[in-house]
Amino acid sequence: MTDISIRLADTAAEVEETLAALLPSPTSNGEPLAEARVINAMRYACQGGKRLRAFLALETAAAFGVGRDRAMRAACAIECIHAYSLIHDDLPSMDNDDLRRGRPTTHREYDEATAILAGDALQTHAFTLLADERTHENAFVRVQLIAAIAKASGAGGMVGGQMIDIAAESAEAGLTLPEITRLQRMKTGALIEVSCKAGAILGNANAAHKRMIEGYARDFGLVFQIVDDLLDIEGDAATVGKAVGKDAGKGKATFVSILGVQDAKDRAERLTAQAITHITPLGERGKTLADLAKHALARQS
Amino acid sequence: MTDISIRLADTAAEVEETLAALLPSPTSNGEPLAEARVINAMRYACQGGKRLRAFLALETAAAFGVGRDRAMRAACAIECIHAYSLIHDDLPSMDNDDLRRGRPTTHREYDEATAILAGDALQTHAFTLLADERTHENAFVRVQLIAAIAKASGAGGMVGGQMIDIAAESAEAGLTLPEITRLQRMKTGALIEVSCKAGAILGNANAAHKRMIEGYARDFGLVFQIVDDLLDIEGDAATVGKAVGKDAGKGKATFVSILGVQDAKDRAERLTAQAITHITPLGERGKTLADLAKHALARQS
Repeated sequence: MTDISIRLADTAAEVEETLAALLPSPTSNGEPLAEARVINAMRYACQGGKRLRAFLALETAAAFGVGRDRAMRAACAIECIHAYSLIHDDLPSMDNDDLRRGRPTTHREYDEATAILAGDALQTHAFTLLADERTHENAFVRVQLIAAIAKASGAGGMVGGQMIDIAAESAEAGLTLPEITRLQRMKTGALIEVSCKAGAILGNANAAHKRMIEGYARDFGLVFQIVDDLLDIEGDAATVGKAVGKDAGKGKATFVSILGVQDAKDRAERLTAQAITHITPLGERGKTLADLAKHALARQS
Repeated sequence: MTDISIRLADTAAEVEETLAALLPSPTSNGEPLAEARVINAMRYACQGGKRLRAFLALETAAAFGVGRDRAMRAACAIECIHAYSLIHDDLPSMDNDDLRRGRPTTHREYDEATAILAGDALQTHAFTLLADERTHENAFVRVQLIAAIAKASGAGGMVGGQMIDIAAESAEAGLTLPEITRLQRMKTGALIEVSCKAGAILGNANAAHKRMIEGYARDFGLVFQIVDDLLDIEGDAATVGKAVGKDAGKGKATFVSILGVQDAKDRAERLTAQAITHITPLGERGKTLADLAKHALARQS
């Protein structure tokens, strides 16, 4: 494993453990709560995963001088938002997926109603974590985190992107490149971008540094999505951990379907180089983020 | 109409208008956004309704000296949470309702995927509104509102209550009175309680006043639910604005099924008196809240 792979794996293990401690418990005084089912489903949906968003938040925070312990709660809150979005995206009325992170999706493991509620409560829980003074002693910093993460998650971000994606499936005309770029920036890019932004907020970065990190995150998010589309064509389900060939099978417009495999690969390479250029002013402090961008380009899962 | 009915109707109209202005727009520069469908569904789901929670927030705030304009955004945020919960509770995999506020439910008017996403984005939007400095200039007050409303909405509150309610339907043994009391305090009571609490937070109420208003809200929430259960038996759909007789038809445990009609009525009366007693220290400033409690007991819809 490369150095960055080891760091990703270490972070994933650390986030897994912290998140388990930060989620509600299904018992009280040793007795199961009447609402235990939804809490167990929340915990189930938060297990596994590459924790890329947490890694971005932690490493951006580190680049701005914020300690790992201090950034961990915000990182976990973002993972709660991500987990909630996966639960809901996988539902029968949405993407209707059976497999996620190598295991049954939440509605398959539990049931649809429980899955919807677990997603709802995970979103709420993210804001509960962020509002808590243990996330940052300054209420204004907490409110900035909440505002940024809510903006990225809502109708103008993640949820809006999912809506466009679903609507595009039944539309007669396919999406154009600008349309799919906007879709992906909203659907997956917004949360990736705000993961970096959260690190910058925690580190009280100045406006120039915030713009710089946003440039990195925007390009990184697109690379991540293009590689996802390539893996959907070229990957195998066991390695990727979810169904592959689905988008192509549905005739769904993706970067790869519009650009072709080679152009998509070229574009991902150019965007990776551009992402790294954005953060050159950070010097050595930006090394991990630069390594991560190269890793995202080369990833097989 | 009684004085309180007029005030409720006036507030509902005011909230309707403010909320319409506070929700995202489905167009940009006159052109519909690609994600317009989910925004239209959010706006649809936020129309109508008695705005009881907004009224409680506004009137509690007023009792603690906070102007109506200042409390309106927090009141609208709570209505967004309430609207999201109704969209999701009405879904086919949950209560499977076709009628809400006298119109088709959101998944009937749009479709299931859009309804789930609209609920998700409305929850997010509530926190966007609360985090904004226009809600209160003090970030610490905003964070307190966010923490309280998130706590009331999550697995330990509203969502947990809905989980228990759904699980109870398929359980062999019916719920006991303490169990159904806990369920209702979570499912509907928590958001009613936090509506009052939000007014107290905005008004920087002292600890004794906060406890007092929480006592009022707790009793009020139970009365509200008992009357809901009575209307399910005795009301008619046209007046109530949603399907009636459903709970009874399903053999679902309610306050009325456990206590019987007369005992339920007696209990609601006692709780109303108790709610009013809680706020006697507020004197004349508590008059509207006291009138509201009497109105909630007597309501026919």
